[in-house]
Amino acid sequence: MSAQNPDAQHVTDQHADAQSITVIGLGQMGSALAGAFLAAGHRTTVWNRTPGKADALVARGAVRAASVAEAVAASELVVVCVLDHPAVRGLLAPVTGSLRGRVLVNLTSGSPEQARAEAEWAAEHGIGYLDGAVMTTPPGVGDSASMVLYSGSPELLAAHRATLAVLGDPVDLGADAGLASLYDAGLLGLMWSVFGGWLHATALAGADGVPARDFTAVATRWLKTVSWFMTGYAEQIDEGRYPGADATIDVQVAAIGHLLHAGEARGVDNRLPELHLDLMRAAVEAGHGGDSYARIIENFRM
Amino acid sequence: MSAQNPDAQHVTDQHADAQSITVIGLGQMGSALAGAFLAAGHRTTVWNRTPGKADALVARGAVRAASVAEAVAASELVVVCVLDHPAVRGLLAPVTGSLRGRVLVNLTSGSPEQARAEAEWAAEHGIGYLDGAVMTTPPGVGDSASMVLYSGSPELLAAHRATLAVLGDPVDLGADAGLASLYDAGLLGLMWSVFGGWLHATALAGADGVPARDFTAVATRWLKTVSWFMTGYAEQIDEGRYPGADATIDVQVAAIGHLLHAGEARGVDNRLPELHLDLMRAAVEAGHGGDSYARIIENFRM
Repeated sequence: MSAQNPDAQHVTDQHADAQSITVIGLGQMGSALAGAFLAAGHRTTVWNRTPGKADALVARGAVRAASVAEAVAASELVVVCVLDHPAVRGLLAPVTGSLRGRVLVNLTSGSPEQARAEAEWAAEHGIGYLDGAVMTTPPGVGDSASMVLYSGSPELLAAHRATLAVLGDPVDLGADAGLASLYDAGLLGLMWSVFGGWLHATALAGADGVPARDFTAVATRWLKTVSWFMTGYAEQIDEGRYPGADATIDVQVAAIGHLLHAGEARGVDNRLPELHLDLMRAAVEAGHGGDSYARIIENFRM
Repeated sequence: MSAQNPDAQHVTDQHADAQSITVIGLGQMGSALAGAFLAAGHRTTVWNRTPGKADALVARGAVRAASVAEAVAASELVVVCVLDHPAVRGLLAPVTGSLRGRVLVNLTSGSPEQARAEAEWAAEHGIGYLDGAVMTTPPGVGDSASMVLYSGSPELLAAHRATLAVLGDPVDLGADAGLASLYDAGLLGLMWSVFGGWLHATALAGADGVPARDFTAVATRWLKTVSWFMTGYAEQIDEGRYPGADATIDVQVAAIGHLLHAGEARGVDNRLPELHLDLMRAAVEAGHGGDSYARIIENFRM
């Protein structure tokens, strides 16, 4: 390998692995998906309701389909990424017959219930179905550090893993087609919470003259430590036991006073830490002050 | 090096670098700090109001001081980790004279204002002062992946970095003694926000039969992607410009509906994502829907 011209090897690999793939829906995300398939050397057929959105991809070598039917007929693997699930059904219901025997990879955002309904519909019509969620922004598509979550058929994912891997690292969530959407919603919720806590803290630090990039360099390192706490707490949640050991909820209640005080002193909106304190206090009032923070999942479950 | 007996080398290093260090306050954290100094081969003098808390450390080779005065006199470097800043002052005010010319490393939790007052007091009395925050739980002390934040005197930190590094990786926040406490508060706030978002999502996933450890394995990977977003957004905050590009606040408002709906359908407390939606809507109403999430820092600043 090391003695070969890497470019020549690349072309050979492309030729050997090249497949036909269809991408329906060319918004920012759909275009990024099609672009990643093209970059990997796959014969990529594209369709969008507004045909002009295909121009840039066609200039890079994509095949423009004149209709959804033509797009579906072009490939065994049909990736769809449109506004929502009703739009998916609206586009694909008329070509149900052509989809039979093909694999539909639905990367459209939606609810777990919608994904499960889509999987049922596909099964009724002999269509292979994978539901998925792209866990990055369009510029992150094609980066192996980006996760793309799949659920619905571990077998189909295994069969097409190498092809789909050009979009980002495929993560198999199992046979329940709803899980990619459920994880997607939960992970975005986690992201907004991270953003909220980070922006609150960055506003505090900024009030004392700390540049956002300085605080953020430490904050992103800190997230690795927090991830380590989460991994331990996840075990506790699965076991339903929450030993507090070295970091009880009582300790956190004492510590959050410094944060609230710092926010008040700097005129920063404290609603977010106040909500955390509410959750902690509810756990303390229920007699769980000596437990770990993981116990607070019971407050979320209501 | 590789041909030597690593144990022999270790002993030699210990002998060459051994220093005298005093640790005042032997709660869980203070005991962990003293234990890390002992493990590194330093002559470690300890004092605690309740002397019995020193027993385990003395059994490992620590020297028990009979008084705070004796503890301070034993070492150039005096680490103090007690309940709060008033407790620090109560213990050290009577030995102010003995502290002159020594270095006080205050790892006691408190507010930035308290830390700055402590630094002023130290300066007035010719005492070197470093304020610090240990960003891990006691079992994480001594792990080079753990951060220990220092502020107040970059020169003193540089002089004692090798010694302090046995507690965890020293992070220099500069000359403002208040910053270790301010970062500490902000980073804990970030942690509680991460925990909140993660517990909400774990409750959602759990309602559909997903074990916490399965969801958490994906969530901790996702935090790396979120960290990447934060790093980009920090640049925007410092520049005061928030281009939305591929992920506008409008896009997030559309996406959070799936999370709220999933929470409602599963009986999960949605106050946390509802607060995020409030923050997003305030930004949209102010005309910033096309901006990135980083713009929301302006809502925190009020």
